[in-house]
Amino acid sequence: MPTLLQLDSSADLGQSYSRNITASFADAWRALGDDHVVIVRDLHRNQLPHLESAQLHWPARLRPEGPTPSVAAERLQRELIDELLAADVVLIGAPLYNYSMPSTLKAWIDNIHVPGVTAPFDVDSQPMAGRPAVVVSSRGGSYDPGTATADWDHEIPALRIILGEALGMQVHVITTSLTLAATVPALADQLERSLEEFASARAAAEELARTLG
Amino acid sequence: MPTLLQLDSSADLGQSYSRNITASFADAWRALGDDHVVIVRDLHRNQLPHLESAQLHWPARLRPEGPTPSVAAERLQRELIDELLAADVVLIGAPLYNYSMPSTLKAWIDNIHVPGVTAPFDVDSQPMAGRPAVVVSSRGGSYDPGTATADWDHEIPALRIILGEALGMQVHVITTSLTLAATVPALADQLERSLEEFASARAAAEELARTLG
Repeated sequence: MPTLLQLDSSADLGQSYSRNITASFADAWRALGDDHVVIVRDLHRNQLPHLESAQLHWPARLRPEGPTPSVAAERLQRELIDELLAADVVLIGAPLYNYSMPSTLKAWIDNIHVPGVTAPFDVDSQPMAGRPAVVVSSRGGSYDPGTATADWDHEIPALRIILGEALGMQVHVITTSLTLAATVPALADQLERSLEEFASARAAAEELARTLG
Repeated sequence: MPTLLQLDSSADLGQSYSRNITASFADAWRALGDDHVVIVRDLHRNQLPHLESAQLHWPARLRPEGPTPSVAAERLQRELIDELLAADVVLIGAPLYNYSMPSTLKAWIDNIHVPGVTAPFDVDSQPMAGRPAVVVSSRGGSYDPGTATADWDHEIPALRIILGEALGMQVHVITTSLTLAATVPALADQLERSLEEFASARAAAEELARTLG
């Protein structure tokens, strides 16, 4: 059964652009057939605790000396990694908050990136290698090449490193920009572009779901 | 009374390099005189919840339509901002976890960066403008110019944007690299450099405390 793991992290449960686009992807995935499963993990509605201890960056056999993590923290990490390993495609709703990822998404990343388990270290452990990861990036402003803020997005590059370089996944990024144009007066003249990007992003998500499913 | 706000975010309560360096800064600050106050907020020991709602990115008068944040979430945000505003110098222990900031530190950033309150928006609100922010950056590997990982640190640039560009603070960055050299065999040949950087960082922290205090 082709399994999609859908992660959302927007702290907006009403008008979220990223949630809307991940929903478009998931709907298109489900429409491919009854065998196409979607596992939903909402990182905002059902928040993960912050990483209990730096020891959890490593599997037990590689940890430096220090206190043993709690049973609950190790169990949660195992659950998150098992859920990841069971996914054929991983879909991540990733709104840009203050130029980096939401803390809820970071708590997930810090749990699932474990050298020697999900990324290479002393053994060639890269179980997710080659599987698709789809990052849905929604950004309040614009980050166009050649502008002063071109390099101000520190979410997509950080996700590319973990998902692409460390886990070896094939990373696809769908972006929608200027999501604040509908509510911030100074951006009102960019509303048309914002709405066009949003429509394009939803269409791209549906198309990609059909391609990957 | 010259007030230092000391934030730590390392999830390592034993051997943390960033905690050691912030402690050096804070000790040097206290040594300047009994009037030199240190307010400690340990973001790992005393964790903030993830941002309850995207509404908290804005003051009430600028929020888009949507649910009102809880009284507790608004009270916490007010407390964090008031604590920031009372600081003459802000010291931030900022270990690099998976190429971006710890989720505990991100939860603080998402609370205190509020356009129209701590950053300019429709009014010229930049109450922290000109005050020093000292970021203590500890990194397991190395990110030397000209190497493949030169641009892989997505913590310092994100903090520079919020603290420097948005809040208008004078940002100082003290770095220590290769903190994993003591425990990761592949980095063992870089232990000497690691220890030298660590000693230099502590000395730089003490010196900077005397300069800013």
